[in-house]
Amino acid sequence: MSFLRNAWYVAAWDEEVPKEGVFHRRILNEDILFMRANDGVVHAMRNRCSHRFAPLHLGERCGDEIECPYHGLKFGPDGRCVHNPHGDGSINKRAHLKSYPVVSKKMLLWIWMGDPVSAEESDIPDFVGLDPDNYAINKGYMYTPCNYEFMTDNIMDLGHIEFVHKGLLGSEAVREGDVEIFQEGNVVRSNRLTHDEILPPTLDVVYGSGGKPVDRWLDVTWYPPSNMQLVVGVTPSGNPPRIGKETPGVHLMTPETEETTHYFWANARDFRRDDEELHAQLEDGLRFAFEHQDKPMIIAQKEAMDGEGFWDLEPLILACDAGAIRARRILRKLIKDETKEKAL
Amino acid sequence: MSFLRNAWYVAAWDEEVPKEGVFHRRILNEDILFMRANDGVVHAMRNRCSHRFAPLHLGERCGDEIECPYHGLKFGPDGRCVHNPHGDGSINKRAHLKSYPVVSKKMLLWIWMGDPVSAEESDIPDFVGLDPDNYAINKGYMYTPCNYEFMTDNIMDLGHIEFVHKGLLGSEAVREGDVEIFQEGNVVRSNRLTHDEILPPTLDVVYGSGGKPVDRWLDVTWYPPSNMQLVVGVTPSGNPPRIGKETPGVHLMTPETEETTHYFWANARDFRRDDEELHAQLEDGLRFAFEHQDKPMIIAQKEAMDGEGFWDLEPLILACDAGAIRARRILRKLIKDETKEKAL
Amino acid sequence: MSFLRNAWYVAAWDEEVPKEGVFHRRILNEDILFMRANDGVVHAMRNRCSHRFAPLHLGERCGDEIECPYHGLKFGPDGRCVHNPHGDGSINKRAHLKSYPVVSKKMLLWIWMGDPVSAEESDIPDFVGLDPDNYAINKGYMYTPCNYEFMTDNIMDLGHIEFVHKGLLGSEAVREGDVEIFQEGNVVRSNRLTHDEILPPTLDVVYGSGGKPVDRWLDVTWYPPSNMQLVVGVTPSGNPPRIGKETPGVHLMTPETEETTHYFWANARDFRRDDEELHAQLEDGLRFAFEHQDKPMIIAQKEAMDGEGFWDLEPLILACDAGAIRARRILRKLIKDETKEKAL
Repeated sequence: MSFLRNAWYVAAWDEEVPKEGVFHRRILNEDILFMRANDGVVHAMRNRCSHRFAPLHLGERCGDEIECPYHGLKFGPDGRCVHNPHGDGSINKRAHLKSYPVVSKKMLLWIWMGDPVSAEESDIPDFVGLDPDNYAINKGYMYTPCNYEFMTDNIMDLGHIEFVHKGLLGSEAVREGDVEIFQEGNVVRSNRLTHDEILPPTLDVVYGSGGKPVDRWLDVTWYPPSNMQLVVGVTPSGNPPRIGKETPGVHLMTPETEETTHYFWANARDFRRDDEELHAQLEDGLRFAFEHQDKPMIIAQKEAMDGEGFWDLEPLILACDAGAIRARRILRKLIKDETKEKAL
Repeated sequence: MSFLRNAWYVAAWDEEVPKEGVFHRRILNEDILFMRANDGVVHAMRNRCSHRFAPLHLGERCGDEIECPYHGLKFGPDGRCVHNPHGDGSINKRAHLKSYPVVSKKMLLWIWMGDPVSAEESDIPDFVGLDPDNYAINKGYMYTPCNYEFMTDNIMDLGHIEFVHKGLLGSEAVREGDVEIFQEGNVVRSNRLTHDEILPPTLDVVYGSGGKPVDRWLDVTWYPPSNMQLVVGVTPSGNPPRIGKETPGVHLMTPETEETTHYFWANARDFRRDDEELHAQLEDGLRFAFEHQDKPMIIAQKEAMDGEGFWDLEPLILACDAGAIRARRILRKLIKDETKEKAL
Repeated sequence: MSFLRNAWYVAAWDEEVPKEGVFHRRILNEDILFMRANDGVVHAMRNRCSHRFAPLHLGERCGDEIECPYHGLKFGPDGRCVHNPHGDGSINKRAHLKSYPVVSKKMLLWIWMGDPVSAEESDIPDFVGLDPDNYAINKGYMYTPCNYEFMTDNIMDLGHIEFVHKGLLGSEAVREGDVEIFQEGNVVRSNRLTHDEILPPTLDVVYGSGGKPVDRWLDVTWYPPSNMQLVVGVTPSGNPPRIGKETPGVHLMTPETEETTHYFWANARDFRRDDEELHAQLEDGLRFAFEHQDKPMIIAQKEAMDGEGFWDLEPLILACDAGAIRARRILRKLIKDETKEKAL
């Protein structure tokens, strides 16, 4: 196993990095220090001193510099060593730390883990809904002790929601819905449309369907390596599909390590934006579904695999997971190509 | 290291598998689902869905079928997939799960972990004492974080009881007793006979020896891979040996993994069967001996070995452990033969 | 990685080994049993029975013998098996346990982990200060989950004390002090002299400098593999250096495993020896500095290294750690030479 390095990953919700002090998070198995400089711009560098490898987040921030807590070297926001308090104070070029391109876009901080030369800001997906001016947004962060691809599978194959989220998000109509898979370049769309569905009570309240039959679409778009937009919409049965109340969401997976994942999620609505009770109910419901239904299932799945590889176990492929399998194959190919390229 | 696969292992006390719901236990490093069908017969299958590897014991049982908790595939008691709720509902032959021969015999459920074709029910040892119509039976299950062969050693070499169970089960007469080792095919008998022994107080009460000298026999029969009958009997000194009050017991070891073991034990008596106080004292005494004397010692032994192999450490072989060493050698040979056979 | 075996390591403070019973400690990944014989002399043997590998410290001590807790073999203080309670009682020469040269010198027990033939008592460093007749001594033992070389680095490079022990042991004058490194054979001296230093309040009290500027020397001598004398002294500024109040200390590191270390420390003074309040303040201050400042930093450093090797990470070398790097290189060479010698 390995990671796709030349890719944008979500590092954090933008608001997670404070104005004062610093923030650190491990991404693709590298601990990274985030510092919001006094001009508001967030910078990222390796959170490990070049001298004796102390983690810098334990040090003191002095203006836009961070002081190593062990022997007092200081580093600027770009990772360059700017002060050596010892001996003649000379600074060897090996003192500088690796830095990473960071972009703040629509409430999220994105980090580029590969060769900085290849980082194109325009490659960051442009998600609908992460726009507080026009949407009320429920969002969260969930740490999960599982490999990120299983979390992608979970979103790409919504055939699970009748079983894992029984009575909360799913119904029999979901599995009987029409599923269509499209691939555009390396982007995979997995669209699902239910017919004459009676929504479970919680969703009935959200979409205001009044207990009457609806058609519901659950359309997922996957961007490599592991970032998804999920748009859910509802319209009374018989109406033209995909026109009605919509709640665009995101499901963004960033590997901490091979076996642990940072999961960022959001669900936005452009109706009843000021309904605080609905907002709180959505928050509770979504958190419950992710923390207490999906997460235990994915952990149980991981444990049941006994450390064996996904493909080694020769998974049965069902109609419902065509999209998930497509995404896995594209990602494998991208990683393989990248590895080859490096070898050249 | 490896396991003998073509062998009967104890999976559970029969009563552990409920009528409703399911039961699961890891054996030889495979998690196995046990389901008692409505006709009372227990079946065993791999506890891992063929699709996305979710553990089935988290799913719902519907009649004699179990539904996968993740995407709703259903499996019959024989492991065959009988329902696919997705797409056109077709069932690929790769959807079926591995099943295992299971036999219920004398209070125990036995499972065959190797090639089902070779499973002969008549190979299951026929233990004396596991017969509630004629015996009062103390029994238990103890999970132990140690390799099963060290637990076999512990029973095969009762030279330890004077030291580990000082004052409870052992006395100086035990180590001075006559020890005889017999081998019949792959079955090893390790018989021990004490002379003029004054039993420790607890045993004196059990066998009613009134503080007078007795001869005691402690006869162990080992069946590969790791199942033992231990018959203990007592008669006043001078009487013909091996005729007197007897308490047949079993000590049955089933590897969970290389480093963890399911231990099933029982001790039966055909005298004072209705003596509830004696029964409770025996229960307490045996549990104490196994949980708080044998188990800590075997764990300490394991830790002291620092991850090195038993034979690599060149163990000193004493007179008392001739039976244990014989059993280890037979088991190694059986595993070697099985591995060779597979390679043909 | 590997250890230098032909070397004296500190096994314990002499007082740690009781008169009755036994003591055990893992050193270079070998669990060792220490027994103080009735004549007061401490002996060391492998804490693992030759028969079934039970740890002997769980057994009973009978005079100057220890009885195995599992099957009752007995061993003398020199590790020789002296009693086999089983069968005909014969003792195979393989029953004897490995023993280790042990020397008690100046409050410490030293153990030789290599070939006993090469053990020369005169090679044990002769530390100043471990002499209760002439010094009041604060001392302690700290278990640390880190490789011992990082703990050596910590003492050899006192450039850290301004940062890690800010306000307690360090000041700006420390980093600006003169540092001199000497090597004599395989012994490394790393001497530091501050000028016109205003001591932090705690130290000001200890050395009675009354808030006035002083010159302070912090002179470390490293003896392979990982034992250091640290002499700290203070004199009013302008006086000849290295003549004044001195507190000789020791910092002695013994690997338990590659990743864990026994740390023995002491700090002695020959002034205000009966000042109990000062003694208690020193005890508290030193323990706090080691437990709550150094230890968390070294653990954080270890974690930040992500399991990579020190040299593989290409550490930046600063003026302040010339001594530490010198010590590391000597130790690597000694280990390499020893490994070669073995191969001959």
